[in-house]
Amino acid sequence: MIHTIDLNCDMGESFGTWQLGHDDALLDLVTSANIACGFHAGDPATMERTVKAALAKGVAIGAHPSLPDLQGFGRRAMAISPSEAYGLVLYQVGALSAFVHASGGRLHHVKPHGALYNMAAQDAPLAEAIARAVRDFDADLILMGLSGSELLKAGENLGLGCASEVFADRGYETDGSLTPRNLPGAMIDDEDMAIARVVRMIREGLVQTRTGQNVRLKADTVCIHGDQPKAFAFAQRLREVLSKEGIAVKANRVK
Amino acid sequence: MIHTIDLNCDMGESFGTWQLGHDDALLDLVTSANIACGFHAGDPATMERTVKAALAKGVAIGAHPSLPDLQGFGRRAMAISPSEAYGLVLYQVGALSAFVHASGGRLHHVKPHGALYNMAAQDAPLAEAIARAVRDFDADLILMGLSGSELLKAGENLGLGCASEVFADRGYETDGSLTPRNLPGAMIDDEDMAIARVVRMIREGLVQTRTGQNVRLKADTVCIHGDQPKAFAFAQRLREVLSKEGIAVKANRVK
Amino acid sequence: MIHTIDLNCDMGESFGTWQLGHDDALLDLVTSANIACGFHAGDPATMERTVKAALAKGVAIGAHPSLPDLQGFGRRAMAISPSEAYGLVLYQVGALSAFVHASGGRLHHVKPHGALYNMAAQDAPLAEAIARAVRDFDADLILMGLSGSELLKAGENLGLGCASEVFADRGYETDGSLTPRNLPGAMIDDEDMAIARVVRMIREGLVQTRTGQNVRLKADTVCIHGDQPKAFAFAQRLREVLSKEGIAVKANRVK
Amino acid sequence: MIHTIDLNCDMGESFGTWQLGHDDALLDLVTSANIACGFHAGDPATMERTVKAALAKGVAIGAHPSLPDLQGFGRRAMAISPSEAYGLVLYQVGALSAFVHASGGRLHHVKPHGALYNMAAQDAPLAEAIARAVRDFDADLILMGLSGSELLKAGENLGLGCASEVFADRGYETDGSLTPRNLPGAMIDDEDMAIARVVRMIREGLVQTRTGQNVRLKADTVCIHGDQPKAFAFAQRLREVLSKEGIAVKANRVK
Repeated sequence: MIHTIDLNCDMGESFGTWQLGHDDALLDLVTSANIACGFHAGDPATMERTVKAALAKGVAIGAHPSLPDLQGFGRRAMAISPSEAYGLVLYQVGALSAFVHASGGRLHHVKPHGALYNMAAQDAPLAEAIARAVRDFDADLILMGLSGSELLKAGENLGLGCASEVFADRGYETDGSLTPRNLPGAMIDDEDMAIARVVRMIREGLVQTRTGQNVRLKADTVCIHGDQPKAFAFAQRLREVLSKEGIAVKANRVK
Repeated sequence: MIHTIDLNCDMGESFGTWQLGHDDALLDLVTSANIACGFHAGDPATMERTVKAALAKGVAIGAHPSLPDLQGFGRRAMAISPSEAYGLVLYQVGALSAFVHASGGRLHHVKPHGALYNMAAQDAPLAEAIARAVRDFDADLILMGLSGSELLKAGENLGLGCASEVFADRGYETDGSLTPRNLPGAMIDDEDMAIARVVRMIREGLVQTRTGQNVRLKADTVCIHGDQPKAFAFAQRLREVLSKEGIAVKANRVK
Repeated sequence: MIHTIDLNCDMGESFGTWQLGHDDALLDLVTSANIACGFHAGDPATMERTVKAALAKGVAIGAHPSLPDLQGFGRRAMAISPSEAYGLVLYQVGALSAFVHASGGRLHHVKPHGALYNMAAQDAPLAEAIARAVRDFDADLILMGLSGSELLKAGENLGLGCASEVFADRGYETDGSLTPRNLPGAMIDDEDMAIARVVRMIREGLVQTRTGQNVRLKADTVCIHGDQPKAFAFAQRLREVLSKEGIAVKANRVK
Repeated sequence: MIHTIDLNCDMGESFGTWQLGHDDALLDLVTSANIACGFHAGDPATMERTVKAALAKGVAIGAHPSLPDLQGFGRRAMAISPSEAYGLVLYQVGALSAFVHASGGRLHHVKPHGALYNMAAQDAPLAEAIARAVRDFDADLILMGLSGSELLKAGENLGLGCASEVFADRGYETDGSLTPRNLPGAMIDDEDMAIARVVRMIREGLVQTRTGQNVRLKADTVCIHGDQPKAFAFAQRLREVLSKEGIAVKANRVK
């Protein structure tokens, strides 16, 4: 059996005069780019430039919608209703898709950003609203979210293709959730161990939790943190190991 | 020869808790609705509600993109570059179109709002950028703008269907432009005269200017000012007269 | 013993072209105006106009700072840190105070708005940060908050004058908190009963809870809901009854 | 006669997660810091941090108010009315001043940012409104603007202390205005020449224009461009030369 994996990275997170990330370099290493849509980052010019760069390198383009919070970079949870979530996802996906379409491409997936991603992992009605917005826009889009999350359950219920995201550098709990950042073991700092864990998640669908058990985990895509200085070097090493292990790196397939 | 005319109105200009306009009533009288896209008015919930109301009444839906200026309601001119204009029109048209598509409809036209409308009437490079954004999004969309404007010239050059907008309540200059609001004769307050002028523009393609000449003017659509208290009564009277005159009221035809 | 009470109302909650509330009428009936500072409502022009109107009628002026959420009118809880709360309160209080000062007045109090008010009632570190921002700006300002709240405890700890706010139209729980809106008894719809409850809170410092007990409650100021159609009539009746009962209506005294 | 000069630099132009400038290094070289107030850059946390850093190094603090345009960094001209200018300057000066006051300092000056600076240099009614906002907030503040500008004329008319700003790296026209950037000679790239020009402006009050004439120019403060990579090295060299020439570097004196 041939294993494949997608590597995804958040991109287009500059805003106006402010630059962030190393998109051009990382586009050579990842297979999916989640592009900010203006609510946490990403003005129209940044969106256009990032879309064109991703298309030029054949990287699959996703919309990366967020809570409306430029100042907090979309990282602050906000008590929005499911209907508000539906509206802001549909709005942002439509806006980003316009740039993809105008450049001759096609939108491939949607991955919520930051606090919206975390809220959608645990809050079923919110997850349903987000998945419905994606489905109503284009039922062929892939919904990307935390492996085992409410968001992906909602996507599957609505018939969407779903991509389960795993993290190389994060600890896991017995229920498959990420270890909260304030607990020991939340971060996997040893890169060799992080990469070995990814390989095992892809091959065996298993990860060892903080407390030593093995739990099942679906792994369709690995998150590359574009805002971290070591991201490029880590992605390079990860790709080398994946190659040696015979694991193909490519974007998840759209229906 | 049977004459036809479109009546268009700006709509969806509420924002969050703040309500504006009389959209539901006016949707019974107009044939085209230009719906705000979030930059001068129109949060996602308002956009969704307005799109659904227009679809329910069979009114043609247009995107109504604006300069980014909630506080000034998009009415303050702003020195943006053509490339910035391209980006903000594409962004907003994509966002509004997502709501139309999700509700089972199809976007029909694009009409810039406020200061962007005025700037695009006179500034050829800006007009070209806006028309190109519309064309790149969907070459079958109708571009709506001031009759005789640079915007419509740009649209025609790019092969877009164009709708020439005229104003019942405004004076005209010899070059076909609107009489500036600080000059006498800028506003036509007499409703009978305003309606008679519209009928003549439709029938004969002529309007009498402030200084008494007759100038040619293409009239595909008449602007109904939704934010004015008398808008509903005026639109009713206008429709009655148009009906008596044998002029059909319907949206402009998409290619 | 002569009892006194303050009547306060949120004001200046228009934004740009959008109008809200009946500030001019209500300024004749209340003794404290909490004026929006731009984050949930209130552009600079609205702030200036409202400040001048309050000064002209001798109404005490408070800053009404909010979470940064125009679209949600500051009503959506947001996971901000105490240090973020400190910054946004200081920013908004400074901005509003500038208009008061420029018009020859002096800022009198600060009352957080909407979700920030509710969060500050229960979250002690957030309450401390807000109270500290008020103290650091001007230690003579009065901090207005829910009677019995963490916010007022924090204000007292920092030596601020505090005004305990009560609600005529809301039910109370045994711990002195407001009855959640989804429970029966959350709203007191009978105006006579609402007014009688206010009088008792002022005179006896007691309120009957949803479950029938009497609990102690400090009442320095009563909230008049400016956004409700009946607000003016209710405030008039309340003032008549207070007058008959010999309760003086005036703003709380600054140190 | 002992000559003195102020060196000023725009600071605090980060926003949320986005970092900009080299404030800490430049605070060792300049004597006045113009701190962004949230409209083109500068969230509350950035404002607080920058104010504290400037106070710690004894640098005079100015408010740096802007047009409301985060996306365009306040660099896009916008058709605002004088009364709108008054409101947005008062709002931002009040907000920044609150952070200065809370940290135990006192606001020293106001310098408009970007497009607002340029508009205020040429538009007398706008200049008057801005100067009046500064005066109404605190008549002891220094108004900083382009040497010879309408803004400084308006400030003097209102009795404000004014600081005339000159640019080391810009060409000048015969009327004392800056050479437009699209003309040859707009930028003085030779650092030795730039410094020599500054020394002459301070000593003799003269500058040679693009076309070779000498024109009078008042020089109270020199702009250091904090966003340019060479800013630190240039400011160091400038200070060395000023020291050799016996020109004292210090902030302009408040009344």
